[in-house]
Amino acid sequence: MTGKTQQPFSHVHIVGTGLLGTSAGLALRERGLEVTLEDVSPSSLSLAEDYGAGVPRGSEHPDPELVIVATPPDVVAEVVLRALEAFPTAIVIDVASVKAGIARDVAASSSHSARFVPTHPMAGRERGGAVSGRSDLFTARPWIICPQDSEATDAVRAFIVSLGALPVEMSPEEHDDAVALMSHIPQLVSSLTAARLQAAPETALGLAGGGVRDVTRIAQSDPALWIQIMAANSLPIAEHLRALRDDLNEVLGALEKVDSTGSKKKLAEALSAGVSGVSRLPGKHGTSTAFASLIVVIDDSPGELARLLTQLGEWGVNLEDLRLEHSPGAEVGFADLTVGKDVVSGVEAQLRDAGWRIAGEQS
Amino acid sequence: MTGKTQQPFSHVHIVGTGLLGTSAGLALRERGLEVTLEDVSPSSLSLAEDYGAGVPRGSEHPDPELVIVATPPDVVAEVVLRALEAFPTAIVIDVASVKAGIARDVAASSSHSARFVPTHPMAGRERGGAVSGRSDLFTARPWIICPQDSEATDAVRAFIVSLGALPVEMSPEEHDDAVALMSHIPQLVSSLTAARLQAAPETALGLAGGGVRDVTRIAQSDPALWIQIMAANSLPIAEHLRALRDDLNEVLGALEKVDSTGSKKKLAEALSAGVSGVSRLPGKHGTSTAFASLIVVIDDSPGELARLLTQLGEWGVNLEDLRLEHSPGAEVGFADLTVGKDVVSGVEAQLRDAGWRIAGEQS
Repeated sequence: MTGKTQQPFSHVHIVGTGLLGTSAGLALRERGLEVTLEDVSPSSLSLAEDYGAGVPRGSEHPDPELVIVATPPDVVAEVVLRALEAFPTAIVIDVASVKAGIARDVAASSSHSARFVPTHPMAGRERGGAVSGRSDLFTARPWIICPQDSEATDAVRAFIVSLGALPVEMSPEEHDDAVALMSHIPQLVSSLTAARLQAAPETALGLAGGGVRDVTRIAQSDPALWIQIMAANSLPIAEHLRALRDDLNEVLGALEKVDSTGSKKKLAEALSAGVSGVSRLPGKHGTSTAFASLIVVIDDSPGELARLLTQLGEWGVNLEDLRLEHSPGAEVGFADLTVGKDVVSGVEAQLRDAGWRIAGEQS
Repeated sequence: MTGKTQQPFSHVHIVGTGLLGTSAGLALRERGLEVTLEDVSPSSLSLAEDYGAGVPRGSEHPDPELVIVATPPDVVAEVVLRALEAFPTAIVIDVASVKAGIARDVAASSSHSARFVPTHPMAGRERGGAVSGRSDLFTARPWIICPQDSEATDAVRAFIVSLGALPVEMSPEEHDDAVALMSHIPQLVSSLTAARLQAAPETALGLAGGGVRDVTRIAQSDPALWIQIMAANSLPIAEHLRALRDDLNEVLGALEKVDSTGSKKKLAEALSAGVSGVSRLPGKHGTSTAFASLIVVIDDSPGELARLLTQLGEWGVNLEDLRLEHSPGAEVGFADLTVGKDVVSGVEAQLRDAGWRIAGEQS
């Protein structure tokens, strides 16, 4: 954990001691900074203090150089405006997951808005409160900055780097469009697909495999939080959702008269568009042509998976991805390993020699 | 690997030496059965023979007691009818992933259809050909039977059990509706969501987190195979897709006028319906209230994950689920561990003591 020397601020005030505010406080205290805290909830405030995220702000404290507004999205603009007034030299940032409305509201109501830099750390599960706060919540996570006046932006960028996060610059509008597409639409689609399972017969549910589990996993997210996010970013989400709905209607039309001319071509185009879209995701998953998947049968006991991975580690196998899968009614599970295509057959032979059962391979 | 004594057949003929046919041949040969093979492609046939899945059928072979039709879906009914004619005492099964049309076509064209039992093993990735065949492909996987004449059904059930699979009984219509909902709809939704990424700016793609990756993972599937499946099961898929589209339109309407009365309630209902739907999935994932997730920072090197899991194994921690996540541009990855809620804080303390960095927790 480095970064103390690059830290551009020494006094930071945090408004809102939920997961993000508390985590920021813990990270800053760990780096030796003075942190003061404020929250409308006295119990949340004292919990964050107990955790060591900082101390409640009093009149004895000097003015902060940075104010972090980490309140729920619907009051962010108002709290930012108050902070700009109260601390005439401080830089103010927020950490809400929607940006354009806040930036607009602040610019419209304050002549000091150049000191306000909208940001959004892509960290945490956006839930959990102070009790889930971690000093390393932001480590290696993208943290978006919407650049304003360049001096404030530079300081905020240095601040983000000092917390171990990865600064990414976008305008508020680019941000909102990007998170609508990359986060809010997948959430809605997952919820809509999961909602269809409400009426499914038990026997159908018993057939659930990795596919439906993957697609519906984030449907478990907290609706209360997501309603706020969706309401605050409704127009960009609606735009992407309309495009998806139009594509869906094309597919539906093709399915409804599947034997008519062009229907199968329409289905093929929709499926191929999906292949080409997912291949654009960065990172290891995106370069899928270089990797192959190997499914190993494992007993459902604590040590089995570790034993498997220990052997892979000893053989120097770099695991690109790993997922567990349990079949209902079965005493065994499956470990779905993703490894380089160039090594997959060697790894498979080693595993078989070591007594592991291979239940499938996919390249 | 047990089951030889329960094996109800001694001579089996397999038509179609792709992944499923070859795997069945390997599994049966391993159990000491006589297996003959047939395929329209001489090279596929000789590959399956080389692998040890059986021998090409000749006039010297006795009539089989069981014929497994493992051809592509569009020719299954025709091949089943031919097999029922050619082997007047044999039981015939197919393994196609859509059932009602085949069952109907066979019943309409043959007076021997009581000897035909439609089945569908939920195994393999439905791709790969003979080269991907495995004798344990069916181990612990559900294998659906559509019960016909009870004597043939009993024999087929015993056969499925002898291969280590889990027999599940449904009518052809129940099957097709179930796979539409549990497999085909998630596939389409994943493809439609992934298709939206085609036009995404690079900076937006850089924000991809676990959610969009989960939802779009199966969009990587082979379009050529899926077009056959979708075409063969178009009506049940269309029915579920229409219901999903109607829900989507409700959400879209609410987003488009988010400030009008009832809009937020509609969003809340859609998100809550998702929570309640996903909670119906069986197995460990479904009982999410009993589990908590712990995110551990790991270096991106071969041995790190194994070291983590070895320690968890030594502590006797039963891992309910495990996923890897890589952040683009970062040298570290995250292991998302799912453990029992009752042990999560103890596990977290042990991990911290052992020097691991915890990047988040979610209950």
